Amino acid sequence: MGENIHEECGVFGVFADKQFDAANYCYYGLFALQHRGQESCGIVVNDDGVFNAHIDKGIVDDVFTSRVMESFDNGRMAIAHVRYGTKETAGRRDAQPIVVSHHKGNIALCYNGAINNAYELRIEMEESGSMFHTNSEAEIITNVIARERLTSTSTEEAVYRAMDKIKGAYCVVMMSPTKMIAFRDEHGFHPLCYGITDEGVYVVASETCALDAVGAHLIRDVKPGEILVFEKNGVRSLTGHCGKSPRALCIFEYIYLARPDSVIEGCSVHKARRKAGEMLAKIYPVDADVVIGVPDSGLDAAIGYSKESGIPYGIGFVKNKYIGRTFIVPGQHLREDRVKIKLNPISDTVEGKRIVLIDDSIVRGTTSTRIVRMLREAGAKEIHMRVSAPLFVNQCFYGTDIESREALIANRFPKEQIPEIIGVDSLGFLPLENVRDIVVDGDNKGFCTACFDGMNPTDIDQTSKSFKYAKKIKQGDE
Amino acid sequence: MGENIHEECGVFGVFADKQFDAANYCYYGLFALQHRGQESCGIVVNDDGVFNAHIDKGIVDDVFTSRVMESFDNGRMAIAHVRYGTKETAGRRDAQPIVVSHHKGNIALCYNGAINNAYELRIEMEESGSMFHTNSEAEIITNVIARERLTSTSTEEAVYRAMDKIKGAYCVVMMSPTKMIAFRDEHGFHPLCYGITDEGVYVVASETCALDAVGAHLIRDVKPGEILVFEKNGVRSLTGHCGKSPRALCIFEYIYLARPDSVIEGCSVHKARRKAGEMLAKIYPVDADVVIGVPDSGLDAAIGYSKESGIPYGIGFVKNKYIGRTFIVPGQHLREDRVKIKLNPISDTVEGKRIVLIDDSIVRGTTSTRIVRMLREAGAKEIHMRVSAPLFVNQCFYGTDIESREALIANRFPKEQIPEIIGVDSLGFLPLENVRDIVVDGDNKGFCTACFDGMNPTDIDQTSKSFKYAKKIKQGDE
Amino acid sequence: MGENIHEECGVFGVFADKQFDAANYCYYGLFALQHRGQESCGIVVNDDGVFNAHIDKGIVDDVFTSRVMESFDNGRMAIAHVRYGTKETAGRRDAQPIVVSHHKGNIALCYNGAINNAYELRIEMEESGSMFHTNSEAEIITNVIARERLTSTSTEEAVYRAMDKIKGAYCVVMMSPTKMIAFRDEHGFHPLCYGITDEGVYVVASETCALDAVGAHLIRDVKPGEILVFEKNGVRSLTGHCGKSPRALCIFEYIYLARPDSVIEGCSVHKARRKAGEMLAKIYPVDADVVIGVPDSGLDAAIGYSKESGIPYGIGFVKNKYIGRTFIVPGQHLREDRVKIKLNPISDTVEGKRIVLIDDSIVRGTTSTRIVRMLREAGAKEIHMRVSAPLFVNQCFYGTDIESREALIANRFPKEQIPEIIGVDSLGFLPLENVRDIVVDGDNKGFCTACFDGMNPTDIDQTSKSFKYAKKIKQGDE
Amino acid sequence: MGENIHEECGVFGVFADKQFDAANYCYYGLFALQHRGQESCGIVVNDDGVFNAHIDKGIVDDVFTSRVMESFDNGRMAIAHVRYGTKETAGRRDAQPIVVSHHKGNIALCYNGAINNAYELRIEMEESGSMFHTNSEAEIITNVIARERLTSTSTEEAVYRAMDKIKGAYCVVMMSPTKMIAFRDEHGFHPLCYGITDEGVYVVASETCALDAVGAHLIRDVKPGEILVFEKNGVRSLTGHCGKSPRALCIFEYIYLARPDSVIEGCSVHKARRKAGEMLAKIYPVDADVVIGVPDSGLDAAIGYSKESGIPYGIGFVKNKYIGRTFIVPGQHLREDRVKIKLNPISDTVEGKRIVLIDDSIVRGTTSTRIVRMLREAGAKEIHMRVSAPLFVNQCFYGTDIESREALIANRFPKEQIPEIIGVDSLGFLPLENVRDIVVDGDNKGFCTACFDGMNPTDIDQTSKSFKYAKKIKQGDE
Repeated sequence: MGENIHEECGVFGVFADKQFDAANYCYYGLFALQHRGQESCGIVVNDDGVFNAHIDKGIVDDVFTSRVMESFDNGRMAIAHVRYGTKETAGRRDAQPIVVSHHKGNIALCYNGAINNAYELRIEMEESGSMFHTNSEAEIITNVIARERLTSTSTEEAVYRAMDKIKGAYCVVMMSPTKMIAFRDEHGFHPLCYGITDEGVYVVASETCALDAVGAHLIRDVKPGEILVFEKNGVRSLTGHCGKSPRALCIFEYIYLARPDSVIEGCSVHKARRKAGEMLAKIYPVDADVVIGVPDSGLDAAIGYSKESGIPYGIGFVKNKYIGRTFIVPGQHLREDRVKIKLNPISDTVEGKRIVLIDDSIVRGTTSTRIVRMLREAGAKEIHMRVSAPLFVNQCFYGTDIESREALIANRFPKEQIPEIIGVDSLGFLPLENVRDIVVDGDNKGFCTACFDGMNPTDIDQTSKSFKYAKKIKQGDE
Repeated sequence: MGENIHEECGVFGVFADKQFDAANYCYYGLFALQHRGQESCGIVVNDDGVFNAHIDKGIVDDVFTSRVMESFDNGRMAIAHVRYGTKETAGRRDAQPIVVSHHKGNIALCYNGAINNAYELRIEMEESGSMFHTNSEAEIITNVIARERLTSTSTEEAVYRAMDKIKGAYCVVMMSPTKMIAFRDEHGFHPLCYGITDEGVYVVASETCALDAVGAHLIRDVKPGEILVFEKNGVRSLTGHCGKSPRALCIFEYIYLARPDSVIEGCSVHKARRKAGEMLAKIYPVDADVVIGVPDSGLDAAIGYSKESGIPYGIGFVKNKYIGRTFIVPGQHLREDRVKIKLNPISDTVEGKRIVLIDDSIVRGTTSTRIVRMLREAGAKEIHMRVSAPLFVNQCFYGTDIESREALIANRFPKEQIPEIIGVDSLGFLPLENVRDIVVDGDNKGFCTACFDGMNPTDIDQTSKSFKYAKKIKQGDE
Repeated sequence: MGENIHEECGVFGVFADKQFDAANYCYYGLFALQHRGQESCGIVVNDDGVFNAHIDKGIVDDVFTSRVMESFDNGRMAIAHVRYGTKETAGRRDAQPIVVSHHKGNIALCYNGAINNAYELRIEMEESGSMFHTNSEAEIITNVIARERLTSTSTEEAVYRAMDKIKGAYCVVMMSPTKMIAFRDEHGFHPLCYGITDEGVYVVASETCALDAVGAHLIRDVKPGEILVFEKNGVRSLTGHCGKSPRALCIFEYIYLARPDSVIEGCSVHKARRKAGEMLAKIYPVDADVVIGVPDSGLDAAIGYSKESGIPYGIGFVKNKYIGRTFIVPGQHLREDRVKIKLNPISDTVEGKRIVLIDDSIVRGTTSTRIVRMLREAGAKEIHMRVSAPLFVNQCFYGTDIESREALIANRFPKEQIPEIIGVDSLGFLPLENVRDIVVDGDNKGFCTACFDGMNPTDIDQTSKSFKYAKKIKQGDE
Repeated sequence: MGENIHEECGVFGVFADKQFDAANYCYYGLFALQHRGQESCGIVVNDDGVFNAHIDKGIVDDVFTSRVMESFDNGRMAIAHVRYGTKETAGRRDAQPIVVSHHKGNIALCYNGAINNAYELRIEMEESGSMFHTNSEAEIITNVIARERLTSTSTEEAVYRAMDKIKGAYCVVMMSPTKMIAFRDEHGFHPLCYGITDEGVYVVASETCALDAVGAHLIRDVKPGEILVFEKNGVRSLTGHCGKSPRALCIFEYIYLARPDSVIEGCSVHKARRKAGEMLAKIYPVDADVVIGVPDSGLDAAIGYSKESGIPYGIGFVKNKYIGRTFIVPGQHLREDRVKIKLNPISDTVEGKRIVLIDDSIVRGTTSTRIVRMLREAGAKEIHMRVSAPLFVNQCFYGTDIESREALIANRFPKEQIPEIIGVDSLGFLPLENVRDIVVDGDNKGFCTACFDGMNPTDIDQTSKSFKYAKKIKQGDE
């Protein structure tokens, strides 16, 4: 169910030649990107150099009330952000976009990713007098740019130079008083695309589904290493950093993180998941009565398995859509049945059947165990689980928050014991050697699969201060 | 999408031999019944005759915070309710359960349905000195029972006599200081069932999905006209009213109102919907590439259509699960695209395809029109819509809130124009003569199909004062 | 400081010949009466027979937000209420005004006082079929009137008859669809007055300060036993119940309950308190440097003591005005100093001085003890406490909520030990034989002083069911 | 009534040798300082170098709920702040304390005052790479200190050097990981004092009333220019900046800003106000019946006038204590009487009397005009107003927010017309030459009286960029 895996962020930006209701575009864009982060969100509108911001903890639906939306003036551009955070106490202070003023004017900036030399950059700047208000890497990026800006002739030149210094995975959207700038790291770890509406509003977003939400047509993905400058006369592309590093698009964006209706670098996410299902059917065939997916993340692959195998697709569960963010679990005795509140099997589909159960991942294994038990109680005769990803074995250093290595089922038990632990009759994971093949369209085959194979596309020195620092931050010591 | 049709209520009750955390059971039960009403909810715990109530506007997730749940004492029984209301101003006062005290002790009562002689009953009681605090029919039912109690030897005798007086559709769960009583009108318009947990807690609920949510096993449906008395020595059934009237289970419970994982009178709701899809495939075959359902209400029938026709089932839309109750729609220009926020087509499924689109109903037609337009924009080549219900033409007098007759698309346009208005290449509704056949299991074939054919199972005099009264109440004059 | 004594309620009503912003008048009126009850408040506007109500727990400032106020339509009349409640759990359900519909139309009713035969009235009505939704005596009064209305030719006739049945203390303001009616028990326990604005709006209120708040001029007090009928053609007075019983105005209204700027039956409350201070100076003279009052309730009497004795008046304490309703008291160690947060002595006034300290009452004695200790710590040389009321020894049966008899300091210790317990050098209470003399203006000398002398103006049978019932309700069993 | 004059801030800090419930001390301290700022408040606890902060808009009672207070861990020290802000939109971001991390560790800092070279300092630091997150001068002070820290051997050395750079009025309390440091500008514009509790907890606060609130005994005022370092071994005083500049304590702290129970540099605030009243009585004697003060700010001086003149002191008004922060003013007609909601005259005191009315200031004059009109309506025969301060004619550059010069009544009308505008029979302001004499105790006679006489104690170049910048910030352009 992927419930222990989290994308860190989603970014969004709009730019037009004239004043428009830029905040409203951001509102719709953030709704479409909400799956990329539910901890905090923010919108900053640039009204001729005056930056009007509203940033708070909570999801879009809670933070951006009609009263807040009415308080925004029109502007020529705006940026917006949704964020996932690991700590309950992760504060309002760390929410993005970050808004600061510096020598050459205001900057607002938001980002998605993970900076690998954050600590070194921060220490270096602190040693020459900088102070930091937050623990967010967005503040570090902003400081690097502001520092470079002192000796640059333009913001984009400062960005260009900053990219030389910042190591890691990053998709950034930022505003100066007169420009919106979007840029992406050289490896292209995470998706970033841009489009235009019929009215001529440029839109930058983490995923195409956010373009759809505001009626924008996709122009293309931002290239790895590219800097796009949106300004009065249109869009300029600075490509000096492009092509310098091997491409390393996070394969997990296709498997779990992105929305199925998004298209990343030419390949539909839904299609990639269906393909994963088809591959599972070929690799792990089984004689069964029905194929069901775990809602919502396993449904696309289940379609693919069904199609390839010829075993009928069925609806195995009802998912309760009224479970909100404040859901509590009272009652010692009943708590154990809490998964029943979220998911309930449809006995008509399940009873007396041999089932192929599709999910997109197994992280800790506890949720899978409960789901399997529910199916048994509903009368399932056999349960053959198929997982549309390899087993996680490694931590991600590029912006995806996976459970600690110790909690991963793959690191706690021998692989051959897992079926028994989960309670299934058979279990198959998408083999590592096949995972790249789920991306059937587009011409890109450079992916990051480090969470499965440990092959980090950049040098990662886990003994470095940046990593110790990151760990410390996660533990809540500020 | 059924979004203009609403069930009025869901009821729930628990009873045990000893004190237990009865409120917690209600909490889980209400979550499972939330689809039957989102306007208000309430729980009343009976702690040895002391009734502890919390009732408020809002959904379970908002009303029953951990602080509220902790404030409930244990009890031997409890009842609970979710309610849908038609007016924004419909107040807290009208929420259920209703809690009153009378000559022989306290009563708490909640109900689902519609009383056809409400006005006559109320006037009669007002004329002999009763006052009414609310506009809810639950208060009228409670008054009738309390009046009968004056001359009865037991609460169940008062209930038995009250059932002679109350005309219409009702499923009631109530508590006296020492008993829980559940009863259902003679026609059995709406579902009501009961079960027992492994610990011996009796559970009454509108649907079996609420039994599942607390780990209770279904014993059976409450019979039309039956009174179940849960008391210290167990359960007693009073069947004096049973079999007096023809059965008339609301067919729309299967089509739309109930949750697919529920089983009503022996037939799985999911299975009935799949059957409807299969029948549509037989009656309205078409040459197409993919069958898709409108989430969530059209998905079950789409599976049936796909299976029967052999056309592959596909996932046509992503539904945004982060749209909450406070969702606002800012921005004149963007507002028109608001359906895009809720549903976005998956172009990989749709583009260049001949599509069979399944939904469970067309009420006003406006939502269907927008959905079809989105599919066209996403590149659908042909769209053949199939609806798993006949066209609505009549108002419901038994507790389902359908749009006013004037707003129904069937009453505004000739049937043959509807495909053009919706924008589809072909359109097929489940024929009226087949609608009863979707209920494939169980031995019950007595259904109310009045919303489709106008054949009300009881005498309805729309010129009576009760109907004028009901209309007045709906308009907000108290 | 009187902090353990509470008035139960304040009532307010407005009536005009034409539609006006009646809810706004109520808003201002309730603000002026807020000292009479902070637990809940409510406004009901009568818009040509349609009753629009908003009633909730909390103070006026919290309950009547601008959004709520805007939701009220204009009307020709409105009534409003503030209520004090004894139980934390005292619910929203018990808040007033009560709004019901009965045979002859709607009634809204609110009241201040205490009904001595509440239980007998309720049981009698329950036995002929009435149900009760609340524990409020307002519901009982309303039921009695509604019952009498069945056989009366007008609402005022029903009220007249109801007054024969209802025993105790009550000031009532109510509305029928076309009239506003105000009435007061025959003894006149609590104040009720009426006036008119320059625009011709009639205003009824518990105290004249609420008339001032809406710019109304006092006409006169409502007479004990009088029924005032405000209707299309003006005001009518029904005096059939007047003069039947001896007058018994609660003396404690002057001493503590009412606001000092109010005038009750011809005598200024402020003046009565000053007079009490003067009498204390005559009866208990002392050689001292400064007279200070405990804010705010002791200030008026302190002025009187100072004037009569010639000892200068001083400001002894600063009262923190930012302590709100949600004030918490964290920290075990610091909690003991919590009174310091509310009151801090001004050392310049106190240090090295012989002080006369004036308060309006000593109930439990704990607060007085703390205040005296604070003055000692601030350097007071001598403290001579003078209390502008006799010692409480009895429970009130007419609507004032005093501590249980057991908690009263007068019932726990011999009178002569109290100075030592409180920590003062001398202590003087206003003698019982003088308490009536504080009311220097007006021609009324019929007062209820039962809390001091136990002489209840009506027969009180504490062994009756009504009293057991009242006690039970207070303990929270409904 | 001083309602258009606002102190900018209050500061508070606690330090002990061992872990204690430092946040609780701050809670009580902030309550006592709430009159110095109601816009936002914050507490930062230093738990062995980990800074735990909660800072939000609103008053203490709203921001520091029991849940928030429980979330604080114990610590060895904590600082806290209340703030007044001029803009509705003044954000959460500008609230204090400010918490940052820099090269040598964390800093938390809060301040009261106004920096006169803020812009120059900021620009200078921006030009060498600093970014600013807020518009608060606290961030500028913190940056200056952090910059100096790079080349200092200790935080206090950095503070010492920073004081050479920062021009203006400031009282600062800050924490490094191991120390609490308090310092005050060389002129000593605003008060700052420290004390110790019986348990050995050091307390620093803007006013002594906050020491009282936590049971601390005053040690002494922090000297102008002094740096106090609270550290493991006790308190150290750095006095290198002391005595370099003439003293200039804001006289308005005594007249209006501080709480009457506070003692500033040896003189009781209450006593200074009484003295002002006495001087008014000598300078402007009048034949009258009663002296009344405008609550609460005029009461102390009224006591003084009464004592000196021999005219009795009376209570002229009741102030409604239930008017909260959300008070709305509905109703066009009634709005004009809104002052009646806040203040109501006691007619017994006023009617037929010749009145001396004391207030502490007249700013715009509109409130005074309304109060005088109310007294006339209540029957006052003559009204002689006496104001315990000179007329405001100048803007304050040192931290007090007075109305714009244009709005001041002294700048809109000739002085001799003011009595007629206000509606009084005579009017007397405390003469400028006497204002210093109200401070009767202590040995300090160096005061800032610039708001009255325009003699700024420091060079103020209003054409400088800092002043333009300050003006811009106030207007909301960031």
